[in-house]
Amino acid sequence: MRYKLGCNLSYRVESETLFIFNVEVAELVRHKELRETLSITPDLPWRRYTVPDAKNRYTGVLAPPGDLSLSYSAEVDLQVHRADPATVDEMPLSTLPLDILPFLLPSRFVSSDRLALFAEREFSRLPKGHQRVTAICNWLYENIDYKRGSSDEETTADESLLKRAGVCRDFAHLGIAFCRALNIPVRFVSCYAYGLEPCDFHAVFEAYLAGRWWLFDATRQANLDGLVRIGVGRDAAEIAFAMPYGTMEPTGMNIWIERAHGGEPAQRTTDAISTEEPAPNAGAS
Amino acid sequence: MRYKLGCNLSYRVESETLFIFNVEVAELVRHKELRETLSITPDLPWRRYTVPDAKNRYTGVLAPPGDLSLSYSAEVDLQVHRADPATVDEMPLSTLPLDILPFLLPSRFVSSDRLALFAEREFSRLPKGHQRVTAICNWLYENIDYKRGSSDEETTADESLLKRAGVCRDFAHLGIAFCRALNIPVRFVSCYAYGLEPCDFHAVFEAYLAGRWWLFDATRQANLDGLVRIGVGRDAAEIAFAMPYGTMEPTGMNIWIERAHGGEPAQRTTDAISTEEPAPNAGAS
Amino acid sequence: MRYKLGCNLSYRVESETLFIFNVEVAELVRHKELRETLSITPDLPWRRYTVPDAKNRYTGVLAPPGDLSLSYSAEVDLQVHRADPATVDEMPLSTLPLDILPFLLPSRFVSSDRLALFAEREFSRLPKGHQRVTAICNWLYENIDYKRGSSDEETTADESLLKRAGVCRDFAHLGIAFCRALNIPVRFVSCYAYGLEPCDFHAVFEAYLAGRWWLFDATRQANLDGLVRIGVGRDAAEIAFAMPYGTMEPTGMNIWIERAHGGEPAQRTTDAISTEEPAPNAGAS
Amino acid sequence: MRYKLGCNLSYRVESETLFIFNVEVAELVRHKELRETLSITPDLPWRRYTVPDAKNRYTGVLAPPGDLSLSYSAEVDLQVHRADPATVDEMPLSTLPLDILPFLLPSRFVSSDRLALFAEREFSRLPKGHQRVTAICNWLYENIDYKRGSSDEETTADESLLKRAGVCRDFAHLGIAFCRALNIPVRFVSCYAYGLEPCDFHAVFEAYLAGRWWLFDATRQANLDGLVRIGVGRDAAEIAFAMPYGTMEPTGMNIWIERAHGGEPAQRTTDAISTEEPAPNAGAS
Repeated sequence: MRYKLGCNLSYRVESETLFIFNVEVAELVRHKELRETLSITPDLPWRRYTVPDAKNRYTGVLAPPGDLSLSYSAEVDLQVHRADPATVDEMPLSTLPLDILPFLLPSRFVSSDRLALFAEREFSRLPKGHQRVTAICNWLYENIDYKRGSSDEETTADESLLKRAGVCRDFAHLGIAFCRALNIPVRFVSCYAYGLEPCDFHAVFEAYLAGRWWLFDATRQANLDGLVRIGVGRDAAEIAFAMPYGTMEPTGMNIWIERAHGGEPAQRTTDAISTEEPAPNAGAS
Repeated sequence: MRYKLGCNLSYRVESETLFIFNVEVAELVRHKELRETLSITPDLPWRRYTVPDAKNRYTGVLAPPGDLSLSYSAEVDLQVHRADPATVDEMPLSTLPLDILPFLLPSRFVSSDRLALFAEREFSRLPKGHQRVTAICNWLYENIDYKRGSSDEETTADESLLKRAGVCRDFAHLGIAFCRALNIPVRFVSCYAYGLEPCDFHAVFEAYLAGRWWLFDATRQANLDGLVRIGVGRDAAEIAFAMPYGTMEPTGMNIWIERAHGGEPAQRTTDAISTEEPAPNAGAS
Repeated sequence: MRYKLGCNLSYRVESETLFIFNVEVAELVRHKELRETLSITPDLPWRRYTVPDAKNRYTGVLAPPGDLSLSYSAEVDLQVHRADPATVDEMPLSTLPLDILPFLLPSRFVSSDRLALFAEREFSRLPKGHQRVTAICNWLYENIDYKRGSSDEETTADESLLKRAGVCRDFAHLGIAFCRALNIPVRFVSCYAYGLEPCDFHAVFEAYLAGRWWLFDATRQANLDGLVRIGVGRDAAEIAFAMPYGTMEPTGMNIWIERAHGGEPAQRTTDAISTEEPAPNAGAS
Repeated sequence: MRYKLGCNLSYRVESETLFIFNVEVAELVRHKELRETLSITPDLPWRRYTVPDAKNRYTGVLAPPGDLSLSYSAEVDLQVHRADPATVDEMPLSTLPLDILPFLLPSRFVSSDRLALFAEREFSRLPKGHQRVTAICNWLYENIDYKRGSSDEETTADESLLKRAGVCRDFAHLGIAFCRALNIPVRFVSCYAYGLEPCDFHAVFEAYLAGRWWLFDATRQANLDGLVRIGVGRDAAEIAFAMPYGTMEPTGMNIWIERAHGGEPAQRTTDAISTEEPAPNAGAS
């Protein structure tokens, strides 16, 4: 399915500020025929960096005091991989590629080490595989309130669990926490999300099952097969859409995604969905 | 200087356990003529993985119930790079390679985002560069008690600061927290430490200044020019010497390091010390 | 029912230490014919204080370096008040005596303010009254593991909820947290507990319903009608059995309670149980 | 000195709400010739309660949906007790009245148990007595930023210390935390504060030294001899000026205090100031 998407971000810069943006569509094999334009106003030099494995694309700009705006638009053909969830198994720890193991570790907002017994009590007896991660998402959907303003950029998975409220980043962090506690590798995903109302940058997570990364969204707010990936990381600490170092104020923000060729609104899928090729198991010998 | 070093680790495995060990000397350019042997008893198949940039070396073993022991010994010629600390400057954020920026982010045990004002109050007016990181280490040495048993594997930098006590990992986490809060990239380092009494795996940190990584040890317990690196990571969550997934009990642990050719005990150096080549600035364009 | 009970506590005092003990049976109307002896060795002067409303009895001793032991034994006739739980209603907030309201406030180990939404999600739709507090106890019994060593003297209700494990003090703190979050006044109770195996000081909680305080024990480890009260307070911070100010080591501890006249072991009761007279509603005008 | 003071509080009540107000001047011996009026609009029945020892005065009102306002005004002659700080000694723990000891315990916002080593490192070697508590206040004034909006009603002393920022309640909590950690009994005080700009309810703390309670204000924002007490408690959890149980929105708030007879603005005093009579040592035997 082909999508048009993009964002406009604007800032009032008070003192010289280094911005690191991460808003561009990741260069994945399944992001076909990507056409895009990025412009920054005023016209300033920028630097770019793509993270080798993750394919996150960072753009760094040093902005003087005054107004700054970034405008990004892209078209991309998203070719998702689908499978019957019942066929997507968990992998025994001993068969996981060693380069996947860091995604079992606790991170800034996901103290999965402290939630081990909680996860074991709730989820360890469920049937394993894609369906167990879905069960975790269902538990979150039923037990946590989606509530704007209930969290901020320092909120951890622990705190969301105690408050039983959060937004998309918090649902992703909780899903990640429980999966890690159960020895399922997981990572945080930022994306453009077709069907999200109102449109915004969205956060979901991916679990590594049966040799590849599969998408999960415990908020049930978007179509799993309409997520165009921007970045992946251990948790939200690693993939903010904008990291400003300096003094500035955001003054505007607009995100959009639509079908390139119109048509019926997408149905929510019950397939298992992946947008990345199987890992080549590289690194293990 | 040439060193002999190694470790013996033994475990009583209750249920099948996957061990990921990270005890081998990193394959750095300045770790010359590394000769080493690693043996695991009983004789089990193992898998190895070296992290591309960090050069951390992981060995994975799936151990059945019973006894397990790992024995590692190595000889290595450590060729440190020395400089006058006064010549080692901080880099403006806008000149840092973009692949270094993740080392500014908060992590599991280092919520540098919450310590921003603390760091600013104590350290922002000090002269910048190597000497400012040394000033942070001095502050830690004077304000935090080195106290065995005062922390455990879940202790965060915040908690150590409130308790004003910790062990080497906690001193490293606090140094990392303050540096990140001041926009100095830093990473956690595990190593064999010549001069450490009693000998153990040691934790210090490295700050990225003037285009390369420099070693710091706020505990003042070992020689900066006698640290043979094992691993680097965001914090202790990433580089435990052993990560066991399963049920087991450690039954023995022995670590050693000595000079290969004897001689006088080393003096503590006041040089700035680095054991890695300058980063090639790769990734930035 | 008449009980014999008591405790022996011994310490090795390193530096002069002020001990505040709270081990004596509270002087309640329903603690009939209390006969008791308290001795402290060596023979030191002591001071006593009984808290006006709570009736907690404190004994203060200033102990020089050396051994210190306290020996307490008592006989008491415990006359519990029983009711059909279905008849014990919650009181509308506006009818609660104002001097009861402090028991709605968060305290050191019970941050009920942070658990408001959690409590609302789980318990707000249940039928009110004694049965709702029983439902909270049942939820705790089913969702939290009783696990020796899973907590220490700084563990909060939040932490126990995340760990899903605790001992009697933690079960009491969680019951208190949920009740306060639902606007049910509750307090922490320390007691001698008939039927507890192995015998120890026990912690339960009391909820204020239908004009009096009713006992609850989410651990299900003792008989509600065999609890001889020592003290009440907002939480465990207020009623340790011993608060030592100084340097010392506990060297022994022995607690016991048995029926004065033998007989069959008590059955667990399903009655609502109270051991205190209705509050006189004093203070309100 | 005679003061005129008062407050107007108004609310928009959405659903029936029980308000507990604590805004009236405490009935202390040194609050002479208190004349006051309290009115609530609309005209609703209210209940009153005065805490026996603390003398806090609570007024409870059950408000239906609609507007609610409270208006309080008073005149009072504040007769402070003054002393030379050098003469105000700390009391050995063993000589403290036992009913004072609860003010050594940690509470909701003051986890003094976790700050024991911090307090010891900073303050244990200072000369004891009133001057040591003043030294703590000076340390807070120098090390913590007074910053509106830096905390909220769930902020603890720990968090303020890590952030090095807070408002009056946080300064009071930190002073209380350090004093308790040093075995100095302390309590939280809410008051009308002459000289505070802009005028608001103020929070300070009292330490129990030389047999009576002495006032301290680490914010240096008001005159110690111009504080007209409203309430005392373990910490802010116990003495909010308004505790609403229900759904409502504050719509207005106005607090004032001025001299009854005009005259020169008061100078900041360097005397030790107490507004309460010495405790009668009651309760100890």
